[in-house]
Amino acid sequence: MTELIAEGSDVFLYLDRRRTYLVKVEAEKSFHTHKGYIQLGDLIGKEYGTRIASSMDIDFVALKPNIRDYIFKTKRRTQISYPKDISLIIMYSGIGSGSRVVEAGTGTGALTSAIAHYIKPAGRVYTYELRQEFAKNAQKNLERAGLLDSVELKEGDVTEGIEEKDLDAVILDMATPWLVVPHAYTALKGSGVLVSFSPTIDQVVKVVEALTDHGFVGVETVETLIRFMQVVRGKTRPQTVMTGHTGYLTFARKAIKLEQDC
Amino acid sequence: MTELIAEGSDVFLYLDRRRTYLVKVEAEKSFHTHKGYIQLGDLIGKEYGTRIASSMDIDFVALKPNIRDYIFKTKRRTQISYPKDISLIIMYSGIGSGSRVVEAGTGTGALTSAIAHYIKPAGRVYTYELRQEFAKNAQKNLERAGLLDSVELKEGDVTEGIEEKDLDAVILDMATPWLVVPHAYTALKGSGVLVSFSPTIDQVVKVVEALTDHGFVGVETVETLIRFMQVVRGKTRPQTVMTGHTGYLTFARKAIKLEQDC
Amino acid sequence: MTELIAEGSDVFLYLDRRRTYLVKVEAEKSFHTHKGYIQLGDLIGKEYGTRIASSMDIDFVALKPNIRDYIFKTKRRTQISYPKDISLIIMYSGIGSGSRVVEAGTGTGALTSAIAHYIKPAGRVYTYELRQEFAKNAQKNLERAGLLDSVELKEGDVTEGIEEKDLDAVILDMATPWLVVPHAYTALKGSGVLVSFSPTIDQVVKVVEALTDHGFVGVETVETLIRFMQVVRGKTRPQTVMTGHTGYLTFARKAIKLEQDC
Amino acid sequence: MTELIAEGSDVFLYLDRRRTYLVKVEAEKSFHTHKGYIQLGDLIGKEYGTRIASSMDIDFVALKPNIRDYIFKTKRRTQISYPKDISLIIMYSGIGSGSRVVEAGTGTGALTSAIAHYIKPAGRVYTYELRQEFAKNAQKNLERAGLLDSVELKEGDVTEGIEEKDLDAVILDMATPWLVVPHAYTALKGSGVLVSFSPTIDQVVKVVEALTDHGFVGVETVETLIRFMQVVRGKTRPQTVMTGHTGYLTFARKAIKLEQDC
Repeated sequence: MTELIAEGSDVFLYLDRRRTYLVKVEAEKSFHTHKGYIQLGDLIGKEYGTRIASSMDIDFVALKPNIRDYIFKTKRRTQISYPKDISLIIMYSGIGSGSRVVEAGTGTGALTSAIAHYIKPAGRVYTYELRQEFAKNAQKNLERAGLLDSVELKEGDVTEGIEEKDLDAVILDMATPWLVVPHAYTALKGSGVLVSFSPTIDQVVKVVEALTDHGFVGVETVETLIRFMQVVRGKTRPQTVMTGHTGYLTFARKAIKLEQDC
Repeated sequence: MTELIAEGSDVFLYLDRRRTYLVKVEAEKSFHTHKGYIQLGDLIGKEYGTRIASSMDIDFVALKPNIRDYIFKTKRRTQISYPKDISLIIMYSGIGSGSRVVEAGTGTGALTSAIAHYIKPAGRVYTYELRQEFAKNAQKNLERAGLLDSVELKEGDVTEGIEEKDLDAVILDMATPWLVVPHAYTALKGSGVLVSFSPTIDQVVKVVEALTDHGFVGVETVETLIRFMQVVRGKTRPQTVMTGHTGYLTFARKAIKLEQDC
Repeated sequence: MTELIAEGSDVFLYLDRRRTYLVKVEAEKSFHTHKGYIQLGDLIGKEYGTRIASSMDIDFVALKPNIRDYIFKTKRRTQISYPKDISLIIMYSGIGSGSRVVEAGTGTGALTSAIAHYIKPAGRVYTYELRQEFAKNAQKNLERAGLLDSVELKEGDVTEGIEEKDLDAVILDMATPWLVVPHAYTALKGSGVLVSFSPTIDQVVKVVEALTDHGFVGVETVETLIRFMQVVRGKTRPQTVMTGHTGYLTFARKAIKLEQDC
Repeated sequence: MTELIAEGSDVFLYLDRRRTYLVKVEAEKSFHTHKGYIQLGDLIGKEYGTRIASSMDIDFVALKPNIRDYIFKTKRRTQISYPKDISLIIMYSGIGSGSRVVEAGTGTGALTSAIAHYIKPAGRVYTYELRQEFAKNAQKNLERAGLLDSVELKEGDVTEGIEEKDLDAVILDMATPWLVVPHAYTALKGSGVLVSFSPTIDQVVKVVEALTDHGFVGVETVETLIRFMQVVRGKTRPQTVMTGHTGYLTFARKAIKLEQDC
């Protein structure tokens, strides 16, 4: 059965790849762009993906926002993790529906949203943030994405300890991840995964040393690059603009000792 | 509560980053490596992440296999999609728990496994494969990963049509994706996502043209690179060995026309 | 013996990596920047590399411009080839002091300057350009770099023929390089090198096909990426800004047939 | 006038991109490959670029070796610098015909050959090497490439001092480049260029710190990547095999102080 746009639904208004807008539909509201305004009420009862003309007769498409869109449109985008990195964090952390995950710091909530999306409905994200204003902003972003029910926002310093136990993963996007490694070891299940995202190589060296010292195995560090292509017959080429670096990703898994013979 | 290794459990035996083994635990079975054999029965009742010494007194770690491990250990690895690409496919397709997805071709089932992992328990993957022996092999891989319940394996030619309707995503890893575009348009929900993975630029141009012709929007093509780092204080550097290319990823979303005035 | 800055010398005024200025020294001239002005006459009789304070007491360094600086400071930098590509063109073309080279088109003269730098004093560059205003601008750039004596600027269409014979290399940075391939074959020495720089993959396919059809061997196409590092102890990381694509480089060598037995 | 292959000439026998052989032509010598043998005497008096059939009737091409070929065929290729790096070193060092350059260590002589090629005939390379057997091997490689006249091979430890003065460039490919920085400062002309090639980031940090401490300016570090393309209409794609890392390149220029007040 086709899902229809309703009063209060979010739509991801698409003009072209660079001009997209995440807006809430209300019957009496119009949305203004430099290409004219859109009567959002006209979308109510329509299917997602519907084309709608602006007052200047320019076509927009009312897409249904998905997790990538919510991440991309996270408010206050400074220092958010990048989709290419978030996607690798999600897969390499091994999490899925039902996983219990600690994250620090919350930041804008972009990575929190992604984790929550993949562990819901049964799982839970415990996300630590020191700065109250960040936590508040993240809460709004999570609420908008409909993911707040799967998340516990905690104001606290994860370098002083992790309250949760038997976690499937601990995911760190913070300045001093090596200080969290001993706490993460205690908080993780055996075989659980630690992930750390760091912009500098100095942070990477420190966290890798801490991981090795604390009995983690499978420690590996990668960086990823993504390049967009211009695809037009006769003019196909990689795009000139490219992000050269976001950060390094380090992964490791908790190994435990057999008390007995080994 | 701590989950323990039991008779019949899979463990991911870890020696070092290059030497890992996915094995099923049986009480009377031993597992032979060039570093000695391991009495798998000794692992029963132990926590995942347990270290176990081989007969040559070399330490292995009995990790709990996660989705990344199952993908990496997919049998018959020729032409499998790569974790870096799979992770981006998963996130950019917008799928999650509950999504309904068509995939073609099934191949080794590596990508199928990943999709199934993220759409379970409520979602469903319909995967098309022409070659019976591939479908059989994929079935084994999916069964081993415990994901078969979320997957419907279909022998059939997706270039001739897609039987499902109202899909959240159609994900193509096949030689002629452009032939599937009209069928994918019909099968997708409005706003649904099509993803295509292609090694050659010629395939990319054809699929992008087909997508544009059939009213998809947000068409974009990317390639990703992943580089592993050697992280040792005083010797830190990117690794010499790197994969230069796997394939291009193309994403697009279904837009539909308002019958009426616009 | 130390070479000193003289009336009429070019200096490459260096403030920091992003702020450099190529200026001609004249006794009575001052050079104005947003960091104050510099009395250029004060540099006369000084060694290159001298530090000089501006009127705002900010230190500049009066470097001696080298070939890289002249290329970087080529006027009208739109569509100039990039140092990373130019350097590979120079080495893979096999040219050196004494080589005779045809280039097309001249464009800004940046690549022309580089070729001239490496073939001088005994060699010669014949550079073809259709557009008179480009040729004039290039002439100025070559004159400033002191390389005009090694260059013959030709207004003409290289797709209609190459007048020179027994060339060591033909180097193409133009829209339709495949049209020049037959002429280049005739103009090159046996074993001579053809180089083509093209932004799009479509151009590459056409030029590679033409090269193969005309008996060139060793045909290969590469792309290069360069990434700048921020190197500061404790904060070392690749820079965020990176050029994702300039163009593909194609290289090939002329093989000739033995009339007789083979 | 066409240059012909003579008794004693080097030819670069080309079968395909992966199978090339650098051989000296002698009248009575035959060269054996798994594709049959070639009577080298048959090449005498022929033009470079000539095709010649082996005893198994397979065509080879007798190319004239250029600087790239000599570098690529340098004997004992362990730890040689790479063409992509060498070409950038050459251009960014600003050297050309007539330059005086110190290099350390000599290693295989690959980089020495390139420098010699571009500074000849008037320039000179002084290359330092600690290990006598390396120096001997490099001498052979330089002799074969016809570049020995432009090179002075020195057995010595460049970390203890550089004997030459007024150099245009100092080029380092060695384990502890930072120990050479003070000596390089003294040996270079004002505005002269120091280049350092290092595989690890730790070496880079140390050399950059030394350069900044000793009054060099324009310090910058880059890494380059090169990717080969498979160009075949309908099957065009980057090649799967790619070198992920060779080393970082650091460049800097000597600035000097005005004795007087500024």
